[in-house]
Amino acid sequence: MIAAGVFGATGYTGYELVQLLTTHPEVEVAFATSRSSAGQRLSDLYPSPLDVRLVAPEEADLDAADVAFFCLPHGESMAAVAAARERTRCIDLSADFRLHDVALYEQWYKVAHVAPELLPGAVYGLSEVYREQVAGADLVANPGCYPTSVLLALYPLARDGHLRGGRVIVDSKSGVSGAGRKLRVGSLFCEVSENFAPYSIGRTHRHLPEMEQELAAWGAEVRVTFSPHLLPVVRGIVSTIYLTLEEGWTVERLVELYQEAYAGEPFVHVLPAGQMVSLAYVNHTNRCALSFADAGVDGNPGNDFIVVSAIDNLIKGASGQAVQNMNLMFGLDETVGLPR
Amino acid sequence: MIAAGVFGATGYTGYELVQLLTTHPEVEVAFATSRSSAGQRLSDLYPSPLDVRLVAPEEADLDAADVAFFCLPHGESMAAVAAARERTRCIDLSADFRLHDVALYEQWYKVAHVAPELLPGAVYGLSEVYREQVAGADLVANPGCYPTSVLLALYPLARDGHLRGGRVIVDSKSGVSGAGRKLRVGSLFCEVSENFAPYSIGRTHRHLPEMEQELAAWGAEVRVTFSPHLLPVVRGIVSTIYLTLEEGWTVERLVELYQEAYAGEPFVHVLPAGQMVSLAYVNHTNRCALSFADAGVDGNPGNDFIVVSAIDNLIKGASGQAVQNMNLMFGLDETVGLPR
Amino acid sequence: MIAAGVFGATGYTGYELVQLLTTHPEVEVAFATSRSSAGQRLSDLYPSPLDVRLVAPEEADLDAADVAFFCLPHGESMAAVAAARERTRCIDLSADFRLHDVALYEQWYKVAHVAPELLPGAVYGLSEVYREQVAGADLVANPGCYPTSVLLALYPLARDGHLRGGRVIVDSKSGVSGAGRKLRVGSLFCEVSENFAPYSIGRTHRHLPEMEQELAAWGAEVRVTFSPHLLPVVRGIVSTIYLTLEEGWTVERLVELYQEAYAGEPFVHVLPAGQMVSLAYVNHTNRCALSFADAGVDGNPGNDFIVVSAIDNLIKGASGQAVQNMNLMFGLDETVGLPR
Amino acid sequence: MIAAGVFGATGYTGYELVQLLTTHPEVEVAFATSRSSAGQRLSDLYPSPLDVRLVAPEEADLDAADVAFFCLPHGESMAAVAAARERTRCIDLSADFRLHDVALYEQWYKVAHVAPELLPGAVYGLSEVYREQVAGADLVANPGCYPTSVLLALYPLARDGHLRGGRVIVDSKSGVSGAGRKLRVGSLFCEVSENFAPYSIGRTHRHLPEMEQELAAWGAEVRVTFSPHLLPVVRGIVSTIYLTLEEGWTVERLVELYQEAYAGEPFVHVLPAGQMVSLAYVNHTNRCALSFADAGVDGNPGNDFIVVSAIDNLIKGASGQAVQNMNLMFGLDETVGLPR
Repeated sequence: MIAAGVFGATGYTGYELVQLLTTHPEVEVAFATSRSSAGQRLSDLYPSPLDVRLVAPEEADLDAADVAFFCLPHGESMAAVAAARERTRCIDLSADFRLHDVALYEQWYKVAHVAPELLPGAVYGLSEVYREQVAGADLVANPGCYPTSVLLALYPLARDGHLRGGRVIVDSKSGVSGAGRKLRVGSLFCEVSENFAPYSIGRTHRHLPEMEQELAAWGAEVRVTFSPHLLPVVRGIVSTIYLTLEEGWTVERLVELYQEAYAGEPFVHVLPAGQMVSLAYVNHTNRCALSFADAGVDGNPGNDFIVVSAIDNLIKGASGQAVQNMNLMFGLDETVGLPR
Repeated sequence: MIAAGVFGATGYTGYELVQLLTTHPEVEVAFATSRSSAGQRLSDLYPSPLDVRLVAPEEADLDAADVAFFCLPHGESMAAVAAARERTRCIDLSADFRLHDVALYEQWYKVAHVAPELLPGAVYGLSEVYREQVAGADLVANPGCYPTSVLLALYPLARDGHLRGGRVIVDSKSGVSGAGRKLRVGSLFCEVSENFAPYSIGRTHRHLPEMEQELAAWGAEVRVTFSPHLLPVVRGIVSTIYLTLEEGWTVERLVELYQEAYAGEPFVHVLPAGQMVSLAYVNHTNRCALSFADAGVDGNPGNDFIVVSAIDNLIKGASGQAVQNMNLMFGLDETVGLPR
Repeated sequence: MIAAGVFGATGYTGYELVQLLTTHPEVEVAFATSRSSAGQRLSDLYPSPLDVRLVAPEEADLDAADVAFFCLPHGESMAAVAAARERTRCIDLSADFRLHDVALYEQWYKVAHVAPELLPGAVYGLSEVYREQVAGADLVANPGCYPTSVLLALYPLARDGHLRGGRVIVDSKSGVSGAGRKLRVGSLFCEVSENFAPYSIGRTHRHLPEMEQELAAWGAEVRVTFSPHLLPVVRGIVSTIYLTLEEGWTVERLVELYQEAYAGEPFVHVLPAGQMVSLAYVNHTNRCALSFADAGVDGNPGNDFIVVSAIDNLIKGASGQAVQNMNLMFGLDETVGLPR
Repeated sequence: MIAAGVFGATGYTGYELVQLLTTHPEVEVAFATSRSSAGQRLSDLYPSPLDVRLVAPEEADLDAADVAFFCLPHGESMAAVAAARERTRCIDLSADFRLHDVALYEQWYKVAHVAPELLPGAVYGLSEVYREQVAGADLVANPGCYPTSVLLALYPLARDGHLRGGRVIVDSKSGVSGAGRKLRVGSLFCEVSENFAPYSIGRTHRHLPEMEQELAAWGAEVRVTFSPHLLPVVRGIVSTIYLTLEEGWTVERLVELYQEAYAGEPFVHVLPAGQMVSLAYVNHTNRCALSFADAGVDGNPGNDFIVVSAIDNLIKGASGQAVQNMNLMFGLDETVGLPR
């Protein structure tokens, strides 16, 4: 059995993670922390019988844990990881170790990095792409929800050199749980229900440099435009991605490329031509679904295509992928303990 | 008082229209038709005290009507308009008279046009653009909901010659009422709630030629990509529109252009730089709200911009604009009887 | 024109009230206050073009106002009303002047009453029942949302002496706006969507003594059980009320009694036997809808009946009824400025 | 491995059941039928990768199945069960075998029973109450969703003779999936969202005789009033139940009684005094949660109490309980293959 600890167990991501870990057949929860709710149980904070006692972070017995997950806000997570790293393997769900370039991190997150010496050893935990590195890692930087939905949608094209030049436009729509359980007017039911709006559009969302880092690493040279919108749903992200390819592409050829690239992947579903993804297809699972459309006029002289991807932001976009990475790190079957 | 008749009063558009007309201070409802529910009252079909008796279309007394609205499915509307046109002024909310080119209509709608002789006299009822022609028209083709949201968002740029070359990408999200009250699995609560998905993307949606016709008329030469998505809300459309301009544009300059172009317009709200539209801003009103973002990397060398527009699909996107057009046709203040 | 001031304009009730007042043809808004947002405009706080500047409560020019509305929390409102009462007529939307018995108020609201001398002159503003007293009042205590839905549903029976003995069970369901714009975990979208639960059931909700006071005043001697539940909708209350009558009642006789009792009432809709109320029937209007069912086994030997009522909690349950009361106080037609 | 067949796999209940069965470690799906969609796969009808081929009912190989589930409409199911009963064990999710009294069935369901000879052998599959009979049964009549929520909430009191005389009022609220995937205006998103209403209240809902049959069998002599309401959620039922007990009861004593009665039950959660059930507590699980409140005035002289229960209508209220019954019939641990 793997003894797993969770820092920051009371937010939506932490709660989802504890739920996954408590039903995982190879895991026992070593501890779950909460600064503000130490001494209570998760069943006191959520409508659930989940009988997990919360301890203050200082009480967490790191030596008893084979792995620790960090579901803390960016800026807070790095110090906690730095303190734990010598004593256990770490999976960080914050943004603190995702960007390899410290300066870029500090520019976007407006905070000094307190553990830059750990960055070189941190593996970006996009499981399908960095499977081997994750398996050997002691520190995994779990990807952001939006980047997961976008990068899995672009990886096969980028890897094969088809994203050279031009513009990639990402129009993303996310459920409200992405904003966490923080108290904000914009997350109130009366503000969100029957509403819809863009936010942080135009190069202002912090998930953008994370996407650009990986695309650059894969050889893609593109201008990325990223426009997130807030959907009146609890969970799920759909990203509609517009791109221009070289001559000769068709939807069928795209499907073929992606089915080959993701052959054998248990959690990536490449839909056949003519079928489209939806949140219903992925929610409450660790799936990423991908679909394709030809966007051009007759004959598509502009070579305009659309890739649409969908994930559950709390599972494949956060806690599910974290468990998938833990499975890789401990040599388990990648699918153990994950829905579907 | 204007005596107004409504053909097809029992769908969402027809019902919304009858509600607007019954509270309009200068209108009395001459008749409201329904083929399947003749003899009943609207209060029998909707949770409402709206005490309007439905008659079969054959019983509609066209000579008693100063104007007739047609809320019939495309393909059905044209025959009804043709039969009525000699006896009263007509506002058609279907697609049957929107496309000037009969061949294009027949190609997209897969039905032969039965009244092509009326097309030259039909005015495309985008009120803010064709105000004078609408005022003198005997047949108004009320715009589609998506085209209204897109065309008002592009008109100032197109009119001034700034949309020459390149690609315009329209990522639209619509509430479910856009699909009408027809019984379809895809419109059931259990299929839509907590769900989100694209549909008819990649040059297959019938509102595309309508947008292209108007853009071409305004001198824009662009490849349009149009991607509609189904939102889990009852009403409202947000269109996020990506475009590339010449050098020198900024968000501030866009706001300035649009505020000038729509100065004095009671129903078009151009938001200041930094503020974004939402469905909450427009729903249950006849407003169109417009906002802007710079999508480019530092200095925006690619001159990439985003225009986001929002309307209530049942009001500004259908019945409200139809009443606005009626007001124009009868020399009334354009805002009479319209919410806000 | 009536100059109307609003204290506490930034909550859901205050915002709804300002919207009603700005479109009311006989009213101009003299001031709108906010302690925390003074200096801003309502359009800065809500997705709306509502261009009303907020002032600190101290800046409110009471002498310029013919009437002041108080949308403040209970406990805060009484001091503000006491300070204003000599200078203008007051409509209080809080609970502070609803209970005639100071001790009862202090027991339920856990706060000392600071203006008990005003209680004797305060009129309980259930417009349909206390129309004449409201017209002459200088201080109106606007009813709570739940009590409005329940009292209009019971008044005709109580008034005529048919509620003597036995038990009245009120199972109410309310939209989330009833909890206000306060930041609470329980009002977050992710907690409410796809959820439903009772709260404050079993003689703990503060609207209970208000119902009991009025029922007692009307001669009803019943044990009231009141069970509120939180609905995943923004607005609206449905109260399903179970009662036992003397022998001889039928649904038809109930409809007859209520139609007589509410004859001529513009905002009370008594539905015919066999038809049931719904939120869709009342939302966005000042209506209260009432319907009836026979709950008994064959022949109904137990004389068990059900009354179901529906209102929009923000309109008839708060700001709409406040405007209705203002119309009465200033001799206007009761319906002016109110939806439908 | 148990070979399980499903008749009527394409409705919400059938689809949920097939999902449960395909992830059940001891089951393989022998066949899944659909009259209208034979030849297609479930993945063609639902947004899901569920690759189960649908066959016409005539093609179902009953001899290859150890058990068959029937998710057919009432009136249709009985003939199918009658044809299958000799060849396999049957779990019927329709109402056709729930009422022991043929005349009562025919009165409420307006159809002649075609297999009355099977009624004496049919076991009412309320798992927690009839566990032993279910284990030995060849035909299980799976309870209705509302009756499951109500009967589990009343069983301990009825069993011990505390429901003698008086009235039991059941105010139930159900998600829309209870109405199935049938195409009806009342199930459209635009009719349900932001709406709420009672339906079939006043002794007209067909689940009433089923509740009364079981209560009578347990010795309860009460007048039952049952009022269902339609909630704007996909899944879940909350039943708020009002009852009058003998002197001496308290909430604490109720909790004690229920905790004893349901001790060791894996799927019944008796909440401590002061805590209330919610849909969030039970949805997507096979749980039934129960909570209690004192409804009386000081000292509760009327001995008025409230029991509130919650279940997921598609799982514990239908397919989950059917799997629980199958587990009992085949000697498996009752919880195998069921969520949580």
